[in-house]
Amino acid sequence: MASVDVGVALLGYGTVGASVSRMLAESGEEIERATGHRLRVVRALVRDLDKERPYPAEDGVLTTDFGAVRDDPRVDVVAEVMGGVQPAGDYVRELLRAGKPVVSANKQLVAREGADLFATASEAGVQLRFEASVCAAIPVVKVLRESLIATNVHRVLGIVNGTTNFILSRMERGDAYADALAVAQELGYAESDPTDDVEGLDAAAKMAILATVAFGSRVTPDEVETTGITGITPAHVSAAAQLGMVVRLVGIATLDDEEVDVRVQPAFVERSHPLAAVDGAFNAVMLQGDAIREITLEGPGAGGTETASAVVADLVSVVGTAGTGFLQNDACWRELRRLDGSGWRSRFYVHLDVADEPGVLAHVTSRLAANDVSVAQLLQHLEDGRASLDLVLHTSALGQVRAALAEIAAFPEVIERPFFAPVIAA
Amino acid sequence: MASVDVGVALLGYGTVGASVSRMLAESGEEIERATGHRLRVVRALVRDLDKERPYPAEDGVLTTDFGAVRDDPRVDVVAEVMGGVQPAGDYVRELLRAGKPVVSANKQLVAREGADLFATASEAGVQLRFEASVCAAIPVVKVLRESLIATNVHRVLGIVNGTTNFILSRMERGDAYADALAVAQELGYAESDPTDDVEGLDAAAKMAILATVAFGSRVTPDEVETTGITGITPAHVSAAAQLGMVVRLVGIATLDDEEVDVRVQPAFVERSHPLAAVDGAFNAVMLQGDAIREITLEGPGAGGTETASAVVADLVSVVGTAGTGFLQNDACWRELRRLDGSGWRSRFYVHLDVADEPGVLAHVTSRLAANDVSVAQLLQHLEDGRASLDLVLHTSALGQVRAALAEIAAFPEVIERPFFAPVIAA
Repeated sequence: MASVDVGVALLGYGTVGASVSRMLAESGEEIERATGHRLRVVRALVRDLDKERPYPAEDGVLTTDFGAVRDDPRVDVVAEVMGGVQPAGDYVRELLRAGKPVVSANKQLVAREGADLFATASEAGVQLRFEASVCAAIPVVKVLRESLIATNVHRVLGIVNGTTNFILSRMERGDAYADALAVAQELGYAESDPTDDVEGLDAAAKMAILATVAFGSRVTPDEVETTGITGITPAHVSAAAQLGMVVRLVGIATLDDEEVDVRVQPAFVERSHPLAAVDGAFNAVMLQGDAIREITLEGPGAGGTETASAVVADLVSVVGTAGTGFLQNDACWRELRRLDGSGWRSRFYVHLDVADEPGVLAHVTSRLAANDVSVAQLLQHLEDGRASLDLVLHTSALGQVRAALAEIAAFPEVIERPFFAPVIAA
Repeated sequence: MASVDVGVALLGYGTVGASVSRMLAESGEEIERATGHRLRVVRALVRDLDKERPYPAEDGVLTTDFGAVRDDPRVDVVAEVMGGVQPAGDYVRELLRAGKPVVSANKQLVAREGADLFATASEAGVQLRFEASVCAAIPVVKVLRESLIATNVHRVLGIVNGTTNFILSRMERGDAYADALAVAQELGYAESDPTDDVEGLDAAAKMAILATVAFGSRVTPDEVETTGITGITPAHVSAAAQLGMVVRLVGIATLDDEEVDVRVQPAFVERSHPLAAVDGAFNAVMLQGDAIREITLEGPGAGGTETASAVVADLVSVVGTAGTGFLQNDACWRELRRLDGSGWRSRFYVHLDVADEPGVLAHVTSRLAANDVSVAQLLQHLEDGRASLDLVLHTSALGQVRAALAEIAAFPEVIERPFFAPVIAA
């Protein structure tokens, strides 16, 4: 087959950009066998032409002028690997309007400005792909959009933040939160300001993208009910262990009766559930659908070469489907209602610290029953005149659990504010 | 976008065929949004026109005449869901030669006749896709070919047979092999003649296909060194448990220094390895590559709707890439040497039953050392004058382990033939 060159431009030439450049060169033959085309980096937008780079670009490729990228007729497809919402968003819009397909690794950009970006892409009739924006090399977007096209995916469960999973895995082995975070920072898994990770914001952006693709209805990060892991203590982790569970920061996207709910929060995951096996900085996403029961994808959710691998796969997919109309439409085609969060149903774990006085247990269980919440499992420990209660509740509405716990928290015998978390059953 | 009809023919209209037909109808809008086309079943080849079917075809669709399928100008793409190597193979070849792209769910056909089928497809310039032939809805072929195109995948580990995994999971809970098999048969997980599953032949066909795709070099089922699970006893399963491992039938395909090795055999899998978490009739495939470290895909590896889901995804991919040349070439483009099996390296578990006499242990360890095999872990149990030895060896060549065990088996103190299996370390 005659080799036709496809010109690639990169926005950004940092760790990911340099890896993309290297992979396109080193995997050139594989890509040509699959597509009939040789992909070559012809332009790369950078801020500093003279910086040292891990895989230097060819002479004349680097430019600090965005217009030189946009207007270069050799550029057939663009990979946005610069990060940040601005100016990346404006660049991507301009490129799409100029008829250039774009591949983006930018989670915040896709999650926050997806509505506008995909509308722009649709109007221009060009593709905007974004595999690398969620969980790096784990091909969850492609699998959702292409492989599971005929199965109504109604639930997505994900461990989509490696930093928090690393910290929780360390806590399982006995570390306190602060120590585990310090190790994560030392190893480069956590930033010096870890807020985005530990408060669940990074996971919320990813879950917003996944829910949008899975359900075909736009979900933005600020619609994701988000709780981070900063409140998780060694006591929670060991209570989970006693119940045969592990604590994980889990993203849960649910489509139920045409209503969408997306949340990120610490959950108690039963040990035999596939997500419980996700250890350290790895990510995993479980897709549940009508025809397939469930499919789980696991792997490294971050990293320069891992992200670059997904960018290259998207570039190849753009070339491989060029002109067919395949997946050029936005994955998002309907507007679904949001579930009132209090109606979201799950099993729950509850922890209570109460004074060891007669009648407290009866009090607690009667408030649960009055709110239609029933108890599946109860462990009680006595220590220094205090009773520590660990309960697992049967499936209940979040609102009912909250209402019952508010009543229980008002008891004088209750020493600390009740803690609760959803249970992910195997 | 204007809707253009794409005519689909089915070879076979059993459980999978009827599910494909139903999904194409029920997911018609999703597919049209993704591809711009409406896929319709216009022909289905059956043996008996009058049989009752779970999702009946429209009037005039069923035919018993293959020529009526091949020569129907409305047929744009064909799904082969009839099973069996013949006449399915001849039909597929004729269709490819007639310029019809084909999607096959037929593991034995693809594994055994892949060389000829893909050559035929390449000559005709049409696609032959086969996602459903391996692990049903788990999209391992698409992920390998499209998502991991720029990562040199050098190792594929798979639990690719649900029947044996179900049996081994039951044995882990205390069942003897025969009882576990009987339960599997009762639940429909195992055939009345379970040979293909329990002897590893089904897994060998799947691993041959996966190795071919992953390494780009044809591997046939008879090149896969295959051992089934019929020799696994409760003693092996409990020895594994004592070592923090589980017994699984694992397919292992390795590309090392341009040499390929593919094997299917019972392995001892460390509990913290992702494959150890694969319980019951589920399948999982771990892909290890340069850029991605490892990605694991897990899900139901069999079932009518699960298989149909993969067939529909392939039909959609054929339509979505039509005319672009994308992946029309055979995934297989080189001829790699086969590794001499004795050179295959792994950690190993060894079980020995020996008479409890002075010097036996020294004897055993000296034969291992003489063959350059070193011991990582050793458990000894005494019972009725017999010693049972469980050893975990450091990474060694299979040939050296075999040689050492042959020498050890010749000792008069050795009561039963030594058992050994590879260890899959986390």
